[in-house]
Amino acid sequence: MSEIVATYLIHDFNGNHEKKAESIALGLTVGTWTDLPHLVQKQLEKHKGRVVSVTPLSEDERANSYFNRKVYRSLIKIAYPARNFSNDLPAILTTVFGKLSLDGEIKLIDLDFVGDIQKAFPGPQFGIEGIREKVGVFNRPLVMSIFKGVLGRDLPFHNEQLRQQALGGVDLVKDDEILFDQELTPFFDRIKTGKRILNEVYETTGHRTLYAVNLSGKTFELLDKAEQAAEAGADALLFNVHTYGLDVLQALSEHDRIKLPIMAHPAYSGALASSSFYGIGYPLLLGKLVRLSGADLSLFPSPYGNVALEKTETLAIAEALTKDELAWKKAFPVPSAGIHPGMVPDLIKDFGHDSVINAGGGIHGHPDGAEGGAKAFRSAVEAVLAGKELSEAAAEEETLRKALVLWGGL
Amino acid sequence: MSEIVATYLIHDFNGNHEKKAESIALGLTVGTWTDLPHLVQKQLEKHKGRVVSVTPLSEDERANSYFNRKVYRSLIKIAYPARNFSNDLPAILTTVFGKLSLDGEIKLIDLDFVGDIQKAFPGPQFGIEGIREKVGVFNRPLVMSIFKGVLGRDLPFHNEQLRQQALGGVDLVKDDEILFDQELTPFFDRIKTGKRILNEVYETTGHRTLYAVNLSGKTFELLDKAEQAAEAGADALLFNVHTYGLDVLQALSEHDRIKLPIMAHPAYSGALASSSFYGIGYPLLLGKLVRLSGADLSLFPSPYGNVALEKTETLAIAEALTKDELAWKKAFPVPSAGIHPGMVPDLIKDFGHDSVINAGGGIHGHPDGAEGGAKAFRSAVEAVLAGKELSEAAAEEETLRKALVLWGGL
Ligand SMILES: [Mg+2]
Ligand SMILES: [Mg+2]
Repeated sequence: MSEIVATYLIHDFNGNHEKKAESIALGLTVGTWTDLPHLVQKQLEKHKGRVVSVTPLSEDERANSYFNRKVYRSLIKIAYPARNFSNDLPAILTTVFGKLSLDGEIKLIDLDFVGDIQKAFPGPQFGIEGIREKVGVFNRPLVMSIFKGVLGRDLPFHNEQLRQQALGGVDLVKDDEILFDQELTPFFDRIKTGKRILNEVYETTGHRTLYAVNLSGKTFELLDKAEQAAEAGADALLFNVHTYGLDVLQALSEHDRIKLPIMAHPAYSGALASSSFYGIGYPLLLGKLVRLSGADLSLFPSPYGNVALEKTETLAIAEALTKDELAWKKAFPVPSAGIHPGMVPDLIKDFGHDSVINAGGGIHGHPDGAEGGAKAFRSAVEAVLAGKELSEAAAEEETLRKALVLWGGL
Repeated sequence: MSEIVATYLIHDFNGNHEKKAESIALGLTVGTWTDLPHLVQKQLEKHKGRVVSVTPLSEDERANSYFNRKVYRSLIKIAYPARNFSNDLPAILTTVFGKLSLDGEIKLIDLDFVGDIQKAFPGPQFGIEGIREKVGVFNRPLVMSIFKGVLGRDLPFHNEQLRQQALGGVDLVKDDEILFDQELTPFFDRIKTGKRILNEVYETTGHRTLYAVNLSGKTFELLDKAEQAAEAGADALLFNVHTYGLDVLQALSEHDRIKLPIMAHPAYSGALASSSFYGIGYPLLLGKLVRLSGADLSLFPSPYGNVALEKTETLAIAEALTKDELAWKKAFPVPSAGIHPGMVPDLIKDFGHDSVINAGGGIHGHPDGAEGGAKAFRSAVEAVLAGKELSEAAAEEETLRKALVLWGGL
């Protein structure tokens, strides 16, 4: 038997959550039950939703004061037979959170894929191990940087930024998610010139940097475009999955002539996941769902910067990306925004070795430019792994010292 | 000059919204500005976001109490040059609400498409006029009904329900959105048998009913499947657009071998639009965006039922679907849930003649079955248009009388 067990967080004004759970389980499957003839009940039994548990939660003063009355809270788990839907996320999300998303204060917190239905979802093609093999780095968190201020700039500008970042020794460079396919820096030109530059840097430094190009455009052009990107020598794809749909990510991941690591960008995900009362939980959306749809890396707001999530939530995202699952490889957690070299000890403490340290301003704003910024990050990582204080390492590495002076951490 | 003007509702804890607006306008386009050399500024000027207006709103006690401090509120309008993105909604949504959706209490309320960018979006293929021609009904709101309790049932059951609904005289019947393509009632079988039944009913009653079949499955199979549906004689498509992505709806609408009316279902839209602080406004999501992406009809929660939106919000959705726009035909508003015949006067007062009256329980729960329910709705509509009280009409039409007795309205 295969089923999906959905966990919901409910806020409502009427404590009878057992009854509410029962009505959801029926309403989203067979509709009604008690009035049905016995023979029909027998026929529909295997399609019927099932209440797995109803767990009352303690009162929350904020919720009470916002709704201006006593709010009852609980976690409800409901199992939906997999035979009710086709094996695709649009059908699953329509079943478990279609009409229900419109039905008051209810938030989808988790989905458990039980039995064969797991196998309908590919998970990462490469995963953490596969990405490590591509960059040849096995014993430390990876370091990644982001292009900055490239919109409206030409290809030589883009190329030079790529070169500087790579020269500093980052493992991955990603496009800005708002850089689409346009005249000044066309998609395929970025791939081809980027490849040449990264090869030149490799000849010089012996370090391999991967460039994730932003795959964009109309949905039904993406597969061909990604296939051509692979042929043109792209290293990896950045993908704004939440403005397309998780099923599009899955199609990119499963396609047998694409075979490129995919980095899922969280753009637009805040529209689905920011509220405490509605929408989808971040650990589900940016953790489990992008992983099972095939992302090899998932970016999410770090708990340190301006664009911040609660630390517990970011740790839960990372956990969903990396916990052992029978069916899926692990995906790299990439906590992003507000990261500078002085934060590397915290990042490694919080997210471990199997994570990517990703910076924009903390690379480009370095007094010695992006190359210096990247070097500072690499030496901060080295110091932490060697058990050294950053201040100690900074005495030997000038780029790190400058970064700690500028952003703190000395 | 072509641009998109986004309107945001901001809640924050610091009253300087002029500065915040400026930082959004820069951050989502050229990144920085004042530090740039003059020549670079000249080069980037045409890519730079522009603050159109910042309108402070009055304090909201609920927001203050929820956040437990003084909350500053305002509406901010920012213009984004169309040259910054490719002409597709994923690129536009990533630009105007990608990273920004993750940036605190901010909700995207509206998008104005100014200039040529309008033409990149098809709008409805048929629109209200085209749908009216297909059903041959020009002088009244349409009446629609929904299959009920069909999951787990076989094709004869599905067929018989379709027949009963059509015999009662509804103009449209839609699949349940949770009925996917499965063994008991396969997609193409539903189309073929449905067509035969509706032709039989037409022979008997002279009334034409259209059946909207739920187009479902993996994204990259949808175009072929919809094309085959058209060849198999489908009347219209129901589409759970929000679990796929608006760009997929657009592709279906623009495809030159599909040419079927599309009914956008609101499943999953509550995950994006329920919060007052975050996400997308309902009138934008279920109104303007589905219309410009090509929906001919848009379902949304009625202001009357359990699954309820505020009436002002539902009227704003209907307005966005039907207001004059240079580039787009009008789409039918379909307020749904909790509708019974006694509510027809209110529905027509609130949503006008150019709307669809849509019922599930209010059709199937009728004492004379779905045929009786449909007849009751049709005579309620006739009464209102003739300026009669429902009670008056009920004296002449037994099905209406029974409905009013059961659900109220006498
Ligand atoms: Mg960015
Ligand atoms: Mg339904």
